[in-house]
Amino acid sequence: MSAKAKYARESYTTMTEMVLPNDTNTLNNLMGGRLMYFMDVVSAIAALKHCNRVVVTASVDNISFKEPIPLGSVVTLQAKVTRAFNSSMEVHIEVFAENPVKQTKVKTNSAFFTFVAVDQVGNPINVPELIPETEEEKALYEGALRRRQLRLILAGKMKPEEAGELKALFS
Amino acid sequence: MSAKAKYARESYTTMTEMVLPNDTNTLNNLMGGRLMYFMDVVSAIAALKHCNRVVVTASVDNISFKEPIPLGSVVTLQAKVTRAFNSSMEVHIEVFAENPVKQTKVKTNSAFFTFVAVDQVGNPINVPELIPETEEEKALYEGALRRRQLRLILAGKMKPEEAGELKALFS
Amino acid sequence: MSAKAKYARESYTTMTEMVLPNDTNTLNNLMGGRLMYFMDVVSAIAALKHCNRVVVTASVDNISFKEPIPLGSVVTLQAKVTRAFNSSMEVHIEVFAENPVKQTKVKTNSAFFTFVAVDQVGNPINVPELIPETEEEKALYEGALRRRQLRLILAGKMKPEEAGELKALFS
Amino acid sequence: MSAKAKYARESYTTMTEMVLPNDTNTLNNLMGGRLMYFMDVVSAIAALKHCNRVVVTASVDNISFKEPIPLGSVVTLQAKVTRAFNSSMEVHIEVFAENPVKQTKVKTNSAFFTFVAVDQVGNPINVPELIPETEEEKALYEGALRRRQLRLILAGKMKPEEAGELKALFS
Amino acid sequence: MSAKAKYARESYTTMTEMVLPNDTNTLNNLMGGRLMYFMDVVSAIAALKHCNRVVVTASVDNISFKEPIPLGSVVTLQAKVTRAFNSSMEVHIEVFAENPVKQTKVKTNSAFFTFVAVDQVGNPINVPELIPETEEEKALYEGALRRRQLRLILAGKMKPEEAGELKALFS
Amino acid sequence: MSAKAKYARESYTTMTEMVLPNDTNTLNNLMGGRLMYFMDVVSAIAALKHCNRVVVTASVDNISFKEPIPLGSVVTLQAKVTRAFNSSMEVHIEVFAENPVKQTKVKTNSAFFTFVAVDQVGNPINVPELIPETEEEKALYEGALRRRQLRLILAGKMKPEEAGELKALFS
Repeated sequence: MSAKAKYARESYTTMTEMVLPNDTNTLNNLMGGRLMYFMDVVSAIAALKHCNRVVVTASVDNISFKEPIPLGSVVTLQAKVTRAFNSSMEVHIEVFAENPVKQTKVKTNSAFFTFVAVDQVGNPINVPELIPETEEEKALYEGALRRRQLRLILAGKMKPEEAGELKALFS
Repeated sequence: MSAKAKYARESYTTMTEMVLPNDTNTLNNLMGGRLMYFMDVVSAIAALKHCNRVVVTASVDNISFKEPIPLGSVVTLQAKVTRAFNSSMEVHIEVFAENPVKQTKVKTNSAFFTFVAVDQVGNPINVPELIPETEEEKALYEGALRRRQLRLILAGKMKPEEAGELKALFS
Repeated sequence: MSAKAKYARESYTTMTEMVLPNDTNTLNNLMGGRLMYFMDVVSAIAALKHCNRVVVTASVDNISFKEPIPLGSVVTLQAKVTRAFNSSMEVHIEVFAENPVKQTKVKTNSAFFTFVAVDQVGNPINVPELIPETEEEKALYEGALRRRQLRLILAGKMKPEEAGELKALFS
Repeated sequence: MSAKAKYARESYTTMTEMVLPNDTNTLNNLMGGRLMYFMDVVSAIAALKHCNRVVVTASVDNISFKEPIPLGSVVTLQAKVTRAFNSSMEVHIEVFAENPVKQTKVKTNSAFFTFVAVDQVGNPINVPELIPETEEEKALYEGALRRRQLRLILAGKMKPEEAGELKALFS
Repeated sequence: MSAKAKYARESYTTMTEMVLPNDTNTLNNLMGGRLMYFMDVVSAIAALKHCNRVVVTASVDNISFKEPIPLGSVVTLQAKVTRAFNSSMEVHIEVFAENPVKQTKVKTNSAFFTFVAVDQVGNPINVPELIPETEEEKALYEGALRRRQLRLILAGKMKPEEAGELKALFS
Repeated sequence: MSAKAKYARESYTTMTEMVLPNDTNTLNNLMGGRLMYFMDVVSAIAALKHCNRVVVTASVDNISFKEPIPLGSVVTLQAKVTRAFNSSMEVHIEVFAENPVKQTKVKTNSAFFTFVAVDQVGNPINVPELIPETEEEKALYEGALRRRQLRLILAGKMKPEEAGELKALFS
């Protein structure tokens, strides 16, 4: 690793957006693609804070959109690095939608984005290790290995039978 | 199913975009979040063509970003519905980046987005069945079941041991 | 001419856009200026594919806007180079507006844009000749000469009485 | 005509824009499509001031782009109605590009846009007549008839041999 | 007052933005007008959280821009309501600019925005009182009266000699 | 001073914008932050015309927002430099909102922005003196000194008791 290890909380980033007309579909709800754009920005900043280098999006894990988020909502996104692997970092993002007039606030999504730190010509470079502190950070840190195997299988870079962590789930 | 079945090719949609300054990160390459926004629009249109109803993004499968796409590139996105399940449709998207001056064109990404057809108050409604014709369409149609099991597991709606299609992969 | 001739179909470009709130006027229809922006992008890409050089918009022929295109419509633009003249290329664009819920699709506009290929300091450079193949491509190729005379007259670079092709129309 | 005649100067509208990164092509000059968007907005406002009704773009005459307008330029657009015909108004637009640091200012384009006044369901309604006062306004008023014939011919609504005003030019 | 009093911390809102090309001037620094747009959004959300009603910007106090914020910076804005007066709320905003690569972070601006809570037809309505807790919140709460007098004088609604709080400063 | 003095009228700049959906809050009125963005652009251009150098926003005086400006309004901004001080220029901006259909036009805001002229590395450089001609220009020129003292006090760069011009107001 290139530098001294850092705590998960040091990468914590929060972003607040209001849902404007151009962000919505014909039902006046936030478009999925627009929310993914917000997710990418907030998680890139979290990764940037961890490694202090330029970062590029490497992958996005499965995201599901359960709750419609109506026009005028306040959307809050919270991102934190969960684990570092050589030159890559996994970031966990949670999305909350709030209607300040009705005083409701719901968690609408969570997602994992992976970023790679690169030098000025775009070659991967090592990043500091991540130290989890809270119970939640430790659980996310542990799960990162399993999610990484799934990513490698889905990208065709690992055979399912080699994914020990993941294989255990199916038996 | 609500209406007569439709062919995969009837939903085929293609979109072309030029990478502008505001779409890029500090390395002057297309940001991942901006590309996901384009993917969401093109696949929503493909789903719309299949079911002729309002559609909302339900989930996005794992996407990996291998190739940087530089400022000034021409990005082409092609989307086609692969399979319909009651009220949902899986859409396959392929992304190509072209440098018309250097005359290079590479496939940079592929992804699966799932959409749900809804009525005017947002309740799910049935969509037509999809009929695959070409070899590629048939392969995508078959795989849709396995990808759906993975989505349900990842969303916590199915236990891994119940996912017959998927389980076979790990043994 | 600087390079070997190319077929019209090699420049074919198609673009799909959804009409969003900010694209519309107070009647909730697509603004003419926004549609011209889309036309400029799609036809610049077609010209780029023909000559593989940087291109700049040189002129736009008369465009008429007959059909309002409502919010939520899917707009498809198709562009193809019709003819090349030294350093300039004429591009033909057709615009279709689709309401996927009502399943209607109408051709709303057609237009001709002219582009000039330039080097890195902005000086015009020669482009390949264009070879029309289909009947429609041949008709567009023939008409290009007449449209070019009209452009030169309107730009004050040719006297009406010298425009043989065009003059024939009025007698 | 629906209301009392108005002077050309009553519709005069001026708009100033700075050329930002997203407005430019790969040579860092203002894109033609972006300039046409500005032209459409300024001329719609001029037409709106003349008729005090909702207006929609009906047509755009041939525009040529001679001068590149670099990033950071100040673009000034001036629009004025030239003549009214039943429910339509022709608007003349002049575009100037200024480099305030180098203290240069050039006229880069002029164009004619035509708008139709409509009621709330989009049906055309009559507009006031226009009274030209200055020599320039009178010249533009006279020329409007000839340009209108050309528009009708190009839109396939008039035969060339019926366009008396225009035909005279070619003989 | 319309409802039970609320704590200052309940309105706390934080927003993170990356400086993109279109946000910058010709020196590649964030434009003042773009930063004020961010300030308005974050402080409107803080006011919204305090009163749970629609809010409109009523006034902005003097803002000074000392530090240039370069392209690629991470801008963090923090907003909190400082005091409520009948239907209006004063919000304090602090802006920090961070260069995650160089690991520098500076406070670049602070500002006070005032919002009014309105009903659906835009008439002012009462808001809850604000309770300051920390020393900083108490100091901001106290100063709010003086700033309000200055605002009323500057808006021509109070005579300087009536502004007791403010007058004391000048003697 | 670096160059010969210039007249106030030489910096006069006017800008016209239509209020589009994305510019508005949930009451369909122009957001304060969006209007401040327009104000910053128009006043930067006025300052640029006065000094013919790159300018950066240095400060914004108290602005109050009295009138809601509804969606579809035509907003006109007029800016003119009021006085120059070494490297800085004060600009006065007036904002008018017009409903061309109802034929109403009201002055909604006025504001003072201050800009500093800088060289290519961002260091302040001297600007020409300003010569007021009309009665209004002279009044604005005189008041500029008082407003400057208030700005310096509010920025903590001057003690209230040293502000002679301002102090007179309170006694």
